[in-house]
Amino acid sequence: MNSIALLTDFGIRDGYVGVMKGVIAAIAPTAICIDLSHELAPQDIWGGRFCLMSTAPYFPAQTIFLGVVDPGVGSARQGLAVKFEEGYFVGPDNGLVTGLLDIFGAIAAVRLDNPQYWRVPERDKISNTFHGRDIFAPVAAHLANDIPFEKLGSSVDLDSLVRLEIPTYTKTGDRLAGMIQHIDHFGNLITTIPADCCSTSGGVVMFGDRQAQIPYVKTYSRVPAQTLCALPGSHGWLEISLNQGSAEKYLAARRRDPVVYRP
Amino acid sequence: MNSIALLTDFGIRDGYVGVMKGVIAAIAPTAICIDLSHELAPQDIWGGRFCLMSTAPYFPAQTIFLGVVDPGVGSARQGLAVKFEEGYFVGPDNGLVTGLLDIFGAIAAVRLDNPQYWRVPERDKISNTFHGRDIFAPVAAHLANDIPFEKLGSSVDLDSLVRLEIPTYTKTGDRLAGMIQHIDHFGNLITTIPADCCSTSGGVVMFGDRQAQIPYVKTYSRVPAQTLCALPGSHGWLEISLNQGSAEKYLAARRRDPVVYRP
Amino acid sequence: MNSIALLTDFGIRDGYVGVMKGVIAAIAPTAICIDLSHELAPQDIWGGRFCLMSTAPYFPAQTIFLGVVDPGVGSARQGLAVKFEEGYFVGPDNGLVTGLLDIFGAIAAVRLDNPQYWRVPERDKISNTFHGRDIFAPVAAHLANDIPFEKLGSSVDLDSLVRLEIPTYTKTGDRLAGMIQHIDHFGNLITTIPADCCSTSGGVVMFGDRQAQIPYVKTYSRVPAQTLCALPGSHGWLEISLNQGSAEKYLAARRRDPVVYRP
Repeated sequence: MNSIALLTDFGIRDGYVGVMKGVIAAIAPTAICIDLSHELAPQDIWGGRFCLMSTAPYFPAQTIFLGVVDPGVGSARQGLAVKFEEGYFVGPDNGLVTGLLDIFGAIAAVRLDNPQYWRVPERDKISNTFHGRDIFAPVAAHLANDIPFEKLGSSVDLDSLVRLEIPTYTKTGDRLAGMIQHIDHFGNLITTIPADCCSTSGGVVMFGDRQAQIPYVKTYSRVPAQTLCALPGSHGWLEISLNQGSAEKYLAARRRDPVVYRP
Repeated sequence: MNSIALLTDFGIRDGYVGVMKGVIAAIAPTAICIDLSHELAPQDIWGGRFCLMSTAPYFPAQTIFLGVVDPGVGSARQGLAVKFEEGYFVGPDNGLVTGLLDIFGAIAAVRLDNPQYWRVPERDKISNTFHGRDIFAPVAAHLANDIPFEKLGSSVDLDSLVRLEIPTYTKTGDRLAGMIQHIDHFGNLITTIPADCCSTSGGVVMFGDRQAQIPYVKTYSRVPAQTLCALPGSHGWLEISLNQGSAEKYLAARRRDPVVYRP
Repeated sequence: MNSIALLTDFGIRDGYVGVMKGVIAAIAPTAICIDLSHELAPQDIWGGRFCLMSTAPYFPAQTIFLGVVDPGVGSARQGLAVKFEEGYFVGPDNGLVTGLLDIFGAIAAVRLDNPQYWRVPERDKISNTFHGRDIFAPVAAHLANDIPFEKLGSSVDLDSLVRLEIPTYTKTGDRLAGMIQHIDHFGNLITTIPADCCSTSGGVVMFGDRQAQIPYVKTYSRVPAQTLCALPGSHGWLEISLNQGSAEKYLAARRRDPVVYRP
């Protein structure tokens, strides 16, 4: 039984995710579909990159990550499958796979140009606006059925894949400067500063242009409720939180806001 | 392994969907539950019709479509199961099944009056407000277990089923006049004009009382970002979109707004 | 095939639920994950108690209820598993299990202090902020694999578990006084007054400080659309509804508002 992990910006109101699972069930009845998120902001490839990168390592070996955030559907952008030592990616070649390329060992990539593994092989019956249903879901289902990866289409060079410019951090003395790369449902601010670069004995974090000062601690419970703290987050990055509240609202924080740590 | 596709207006906050899946798992442990949507507007039978009609053809043969949008629960409205060549419908007889009757080949229908296939056979222990849990989910689970369809209750005439008045379009010369039948999560406007009635060489679409002029193209990528276009949508209808934006917001569009196409 | 029912306040935007299911799939590939809700208000243990209590009786025997509403993560609060005659609870010892203790027959409880059943046995690799992923999901998956309950950790006294103060009602003559314990997605107001304490021949319900008078009937259909009624709800409690509308909005109702029934 192979797992297919689904990530889209389709929302859950319209049946777009359901129809992809219907297509998968018709091809690979024993595949297990697991939702990562369907609530990415429309066309938010950057957020999709973060979600894949931070969840994929916890999935079973050989999981197929089916990511459909696809503003370029119907244009010249290519459909892509990547084989990693740890599993597979299927989706558009628009940078969504960037995070997996950073953390997994890539083996090979193909352009999805073999219509035999699409929902129907006739190109004129493939929707120009919903490759998730007509190309990506069927390809993921066939992979779950263990068809050989190479059959999906023409080989492409791993170095040619579209990549997002990866957010990073700089080190000046023992001062680390990065930014907010993700804000979660609770309003926690996940930075680009790796938690294991921060001192285990604490420190100070400065947020935003105002340089608000926040203590760096080990766990939420070191500060009172409704108090700001910075701590090693569950994704492995320095994270800014409001204990039992939303740091996003409290700080009026936005993605890409600057963050500095000093021990 | 049979698939059960669930469509409700229950939302996902309360556990109403979860409890139906619990009931199904208790009766049919190997059935695969697939969510179509639980975010229909409360009591939106019209929207439920569209979702079933546009997703069902992509599901495995013999899928059971369990639809619970049920403003008349506890009243004289009947519980219904319909057997199609392609699968089954289980839910209230209030028009929700209309779209499936239009696209599938109906074989037979029964009124769900055999309490042996309810969650408990005692009528006084069946909730008057939640037949989804107490009648429809158990019936769907028994169907997934391959019990004979006829056992579910008394046969009813297919012509007697409640049907919604189906939205349609008119043709005057080569001018097609219809309306918006559905607006999706992205703000795309899905009309009642079949895409295959439109010319493959383009045309013009006029929206709403203001008759806003929109070019009819093949794919989003033929127009710049944040630009309106009309195109053959993935559901098979002429669709109005704002490339990488929301046509709904841009046009302040509403369901049933008029749309005209001319080549 | 064992079922794991998941209840969290994680939302569905971030992949936090997906990553827990990935962890479960890696340990127990045949376990069936069923979502109860992930849309509890952040840190709403009270709402989680209600959801577990009102859905658990409908699940298959031996279902594992994995509840992660965990404002105290990383503090001295303990990780907990409880064995019931009807199934299992896994989650923080913060009162979330209260409803299950009320309705199920508890057999034993353990503190989750055996790292062999965590995602990784090294304590310093366990996140201080996401025990759902690193401790609770793996423990639930191992239970689904039928490992002996006692191996999960040190036995604890059932009487020592954290319990929420349970909402209740009082009886004065034949007048019953309670309060709103839950408001659902439709705006139905679920009270703390058991429906089977109310007269089958009707009665009057008074809501809130204003003592709005509402007829107690058997089903929605006894009153016109957009009209208030009180009725025996599907959870087993007296419930106040606006037929085809939201009683919450109509009455500006809030959790804990007072309610009185008299025959």
